[in-house]
Amino acid sequence: MKKIINDPNQVVNEMLEGVVKAHPEYVKRLEGFNVLVRANKPSFPKVALVSGGGSGHEPSHGGFVGEGMLDGAVAGEVFTSPTPDQVFEAVKAVDNGGGVLLVVKNYTGDILNFEMASELAAEEGIKVESVVVNDDVAVENSTWTTGRRGVAGTVLVHKIAGAAAEKGKSLEEVKAIAEKVNANVRSMGMSLTPCTVPAAGKPGFQLADDEMEVGLGIHGEPGTHRAKITSAKEIVSHLMEKILKDIDINSGEEVAVLVNGLGGTPLMELYIVNNEVAEILNEKGIKIYKTIVGNYMTSLEMAGFSISILKLDEELKELLDSKADTPGFKL
Amino acid sequence: MKKIINDPNQVVNEMLEGVVKAHPEYVKRLEGFNVLVRANKPSFPKVALVSGGGSGHEPSHGGFVGEGMLDGAVAGEVFTSPTPDQVFEAVKAVDNGGGVLLVVKNYTGDILNFEMASELAAEEGIKVESVVVNDDVAVENSTWTTGRRGVAGTVLVHKIAGAAAEKGKSLEEVKAIAEKVNANVRSMGMSLTPCTVPAAGKPGFQLADDEMEVGLGIHGEPGTHRAKITSAKEIVSHLMEKILKDIDINSGEEVAVLVNGLGGTPLMELYIVNNEVAEILNEKGIKIYKTIVGNYMTSLEMAGFSISILKLDEELKELLDSKADTPGFKL
Repeated sequence: MKKIINDPNQVVNEMLEGVVKAHPEYVKRLEGFNVLVRANKPSFPKVALVSGGGSGHEPSHGGFVGEGMLDGAVAGEVFTSPTPDQVFEAVKAVDNGGGVLLVVKNYTGDILNFEMASELAAEEGIKVESVVVNDDVAVENSTWTTGRRGVAGTVLVHKIAGAAAEKGKSLEEVKAIAEKVNANVRSMGMSLTPCTVPAAGKPGFQLADDEMEVGLGIHGEPGTHRAKITSAKEIVSHLMEKILKDIDINSGEEVAVLVNGLGGTPLMELYIVNNEVAEILNEKGIKIYKTIVGNYMTSLEMAGFSISILKLDEELKELLDSKADTPGFKL
Repeated sequence: MKKIINDPNQVVNEMLEGVVKAHPEYVKRLEGFNVLVRANKPSFPKVALVSGGGSGHEPSHGGFVGEGMLDGAVAGEVFTSPTPDQVFEAVKAVDNGGGVLLVVKNYTGDILNFEMASELAAEEGIKVESVVVNDDVAVENSTWTTGRRGVAGTVLVHKIAGAAAEKGKSLEEVKAIAEKVNANVRSMGMSLTPCTVPAAGKPGFQLADDEMEVGLGIHGEPGTHRAKITSAKEIVSHLMEKILKDIDINSGEEVAVLVNGLGGTPLMELYIVNNEVAEILNEKGIKIYKTIVGNYMTSLEMAGFSISILKLDEELKELLDSKADTPGFKL
């Protein structure tokens, strides 16, 4: 295992300390918990957004705590759901009278633990709603998931629902917008290499030197198939076909594109991927309103990428364009 | 070679196309050249900043074209200096009456080719000045360098000199500020893995499974030594000792910290590194004014990082805090 770490069992703790030391103007840590919240609580009773999940997907989710996105983020151990008490602490800390929206990626453990936290919060009289993101078109059901997995589209939910909350919309309205983003976004990824959970010490799966995994999950869950590595053009063409088959987007309609790196892929390759994505959309007459390229929902050091396509309307466009000021996403 | 590309000889071309398609509001390409310039030329006669070098260091330098940073960036082939005619085209395109400052990393090829471009521009009556960045404390002279190499500190030169230019300072003033940043910044890096230039098809060097290279350059040039991988704490302690031995920073003085990923290192590890950097500075009473963590000066898919420490004064702090709005760096 080649990693720049100290104790494999302290990676989450030391990472969170490193985030707080880097960005004290944005985030602080709830003492005794693996929870990051905004350094300054908003002064008006806005809806608070809390997300989280296993660690290893940085900057998701702690990197998105800040104006226009999340109010709190809960970090589980690497690729492991955070416990209900941690989520509950985050909810209590960020509630500001406007209620709390939990943004949960569709993994069985996350669903269960966020739900329990939600019940604990309700008992204390905090209004809590949840949205489950399940944007990955690759497979139905997976290693840790019933239904479809939640992947990089979650970042777009944070961005757009966060903007709605910042504009003072109600909990019901923010939830409806988050659900609209989830309904309008589709993603699919691939990888060239596995990744290694520090405490495990060895890669989660193996790939031959000339092999790629298509449609895999962000924890290395199996995808649709393995194949010999082909050209960027062929790979993107396949992913885009699967994505666009799953959602009705007509010529003349507008989309946002997220080309997301999984952690170990150079930006050069992500932009080559984007060149292919844009060509396919252009050919179909689908208008690209905004493109985001970079590492947003990663899988440790995995080499690979995912494409997310979000169908836009006027409301989503306005919220997508609103100010976001967080360590991991600025607009 | 595991890469998401098409033709290895087209990676720079297709990457630049992908950048322009992703960020048309920021950049456009000079037709027929590997040059990105701002989509909208500033309307007042400010000093224009041009940087560049071999590709493979993305987002350096094309990702920093935009308000408050660069006006133009020239992309050579991977790890290969851009030719003088390409640099000359960039200079002609961005000159706006205020003169042009070339920011050049200290590699013999870059120095030569930017100098030739500068002479061609002078013949056309364009005022051109150059600043050479040589922030890497690891070694004197290297595979492609006489003297010290220019590495991630270059990004801080772009940021701060770019802010000075945006404020309307003269070419002489902007040059003096860029030189002050270079005089005040020191960097050093390490890697866990080599990287593969697409057209070469195999890694530039080899490292054993338990081995790291300390002090290497951003093209994989040899560093000070190879060693068994140790803890993040020990690695950072060694790099910080070399950096702080080379520049006089006293207790109570302020610095900016850049923890830069080389392309294949997860953000989790970069934040663990930052935790150690901050602890060392805190112990010495050196104040951290601002911290930047992420992939800014990369080496394709290399796993590793560098630390840059910039000693600040009031002028540099103000310029560091000024607005930057580019695809790769926003503030």
